[in-house]
Amino acid sequence: MQADELVRQVEEDRQHGASELAFVALQGVTVVAHQWSGSRGYLLKRHMLKLLARLGEVRPSMIALQNLLNQLAARIKRLPATDLRELQHEIAAAADAVVENARLAQQHAAGGMADLISPGDVVMTYSVSSTMKLMFNLAEEKVGKVYVPESRPGNEGALLAAYLSDLHLDVHYITEAQVNLFMPQCDKVIVGADAVLSQGDVVNKAGTSLLALSAHYHHVPFYVCAERFKNCRRRQLPLEAMDPVELGMSHEGVSVHNVYFDITPTALVTRRVS
Amino acid sequence: MQADELVRQVEEDRQHGASELAFVALQGVTVVAHQWSGSRGYLLKRHMLKLLARLGEVRPSMIALQNLLNQLAARIKRLPATDLRELQHEIAAAADAVVENARLAQQHAAGGMADLISPGDVVMTYSVSSTMKLMFNLAEEKVGKVYVPESRPGNEGALLAAYLSDLHLDVHYITEAQVNLFMPQCDKVIVGADAVLSQGDVVNKAGTSLLALSAHYHHVPFYVCAERFKNCRRRQLPLEAMDPVELGMSHEGVSVHNVYFDITPTALVTRRVS
Repeated sequence: MQADELVRQVEEDRQHGASELAFVALQGVTVVAHQWSGSRGYLLKRHMLKLLARLGEVRPSMIALQNLLNQLAARIKRLPATDLRELQHEIAAAADAVVENARLAQQHAAGGMADLISPGDVVMTYSVSSTMKLMFNLAEEKVGKVYVPESRPGNEGALLAAYLSDLHLDVHYITEAQVNLFMPQCDKVIVGADAVLSQGDVVNKAGTSLLALSAHYHHVPFYVCAERFKNCRRRQLPLEAMDPVELGMSHEGVSVHNVYFDITPTALVTRRVS
Repeated sequence: MQADELVRQVEEDRQHGASELAFVALQGVTVVAHQWSGSRGYLLKRHMLKLLARLGEVRPSMIALQNLLNQLAARIKRLPATDLRELQHEIAAAADAVVENARLAQQHAAGGMADLISPGDVVMTYSVSSTMKLMFNLAEEKVGKVYVPESRPGNEGALLAAYLSDLHLDVHYITEAQVNLFMPQCDKVIVGADAVLSQGDVVNKAGTSLLALSAHYHHVPFYVCAERFKNCRRRQLPLEAMDPVELGMSHEGVSVHNVYFDITPTALVTRRVS
């Protein structure tokens, strides 16, 4: 795989949450390093650092991706660049270590969140992420029922609903439009995050803030399960917009919007688990 | 057209708002009366009253339909049933009178709402209805921009967006998931209603209450444009659920919900215009 191909893959990905996409990117970096056609270690190092910087820029709302790529860049910078083969090996080991640490953080966050679920709890969640999948895996025996909205336009909710149903959870699939209808039946809302801003506001799939507003209105606790590597030092992030064609609407003169993320104010978050 | 055919048509309709569907039903009643194959006036009268009662039951959330059908039933009850031809004629005239009065009420409500729009106002609306179409027609020159969510699963928003674009309005089409993202840019939210309950709560297309929550959060005034014939004497109405297949999700063990209406509490309504 070439660097350009990996950058395009990460840029065009619509299926993965921030952590999982970071893992995909880190594995990809290892492959690119191994298949690199140059002959000098210091050139590979430069090539890798440039690739990591590019990858960090293509998904500006996904701070987890940027943070984990930065962790790898810091490790690569410290590597000696004398022997090419050895450097390729060390880059792979460094990427594995970053993934390993992130997976531990993920297990910690998912486990901490699962501990807060009471037996029989009815939970509403949103979008799909590896952290949420893991959390439901750990809490599987306790969750009484789970409501999963579609998450238009990509319908990632359908992926999560299918996954949770295969875990034998009692899964209820709804449109975003029905969120406030079913909220009164819920004991908890639990969502992941793509980033947590410095003031505590949560960047996640567009629509998340509607769940938070509805939960707040009905006095349902709203939990965000997000590892520390999702922390962002800034108070604001650019919110990525994707291809409007995904909405399937074209009519002369109608502007179609497809912003993928929204911001849930920290005041609407009952608790963040990390 | 036979009575059964009309009942089925009203039951299966997904495209019309409450008023427009009532107009369709009232026209249908006239046609059924004209094509009735019996020979006695009193039997036609009985047949019509039975048909009106059946039509009122098939769409329990659409109180406007029930109210206008009841108005027609009251008029038919007062008609002499001596001559069949004359009765058929009188039924048509009565239906026309009910439609005419309702259209006047609709023009009054739409006009009153249009008067409240200030030049350049950015408006968010939801779903589609003849009252809303008329209102935007009347306010056409004043509306600066209009945001129209899809209104899943039927995407009635696409119909309205196309209609408003053909009026040369600046139309912006979004998913329900993006409602809270674009709300801060809006000056007003304006929606129609399928019914207004006795305590003032508003029954409208599922998702309306999310617009109300988001508007409330961002201090955007939330207007309901609903004629008096949408008033319901009860504090609660059954909320119709339609075929789950409309969501396009089927996976073993996943329950799919498709409730078509939700209730917006009167406390979230800035003003009702009727």
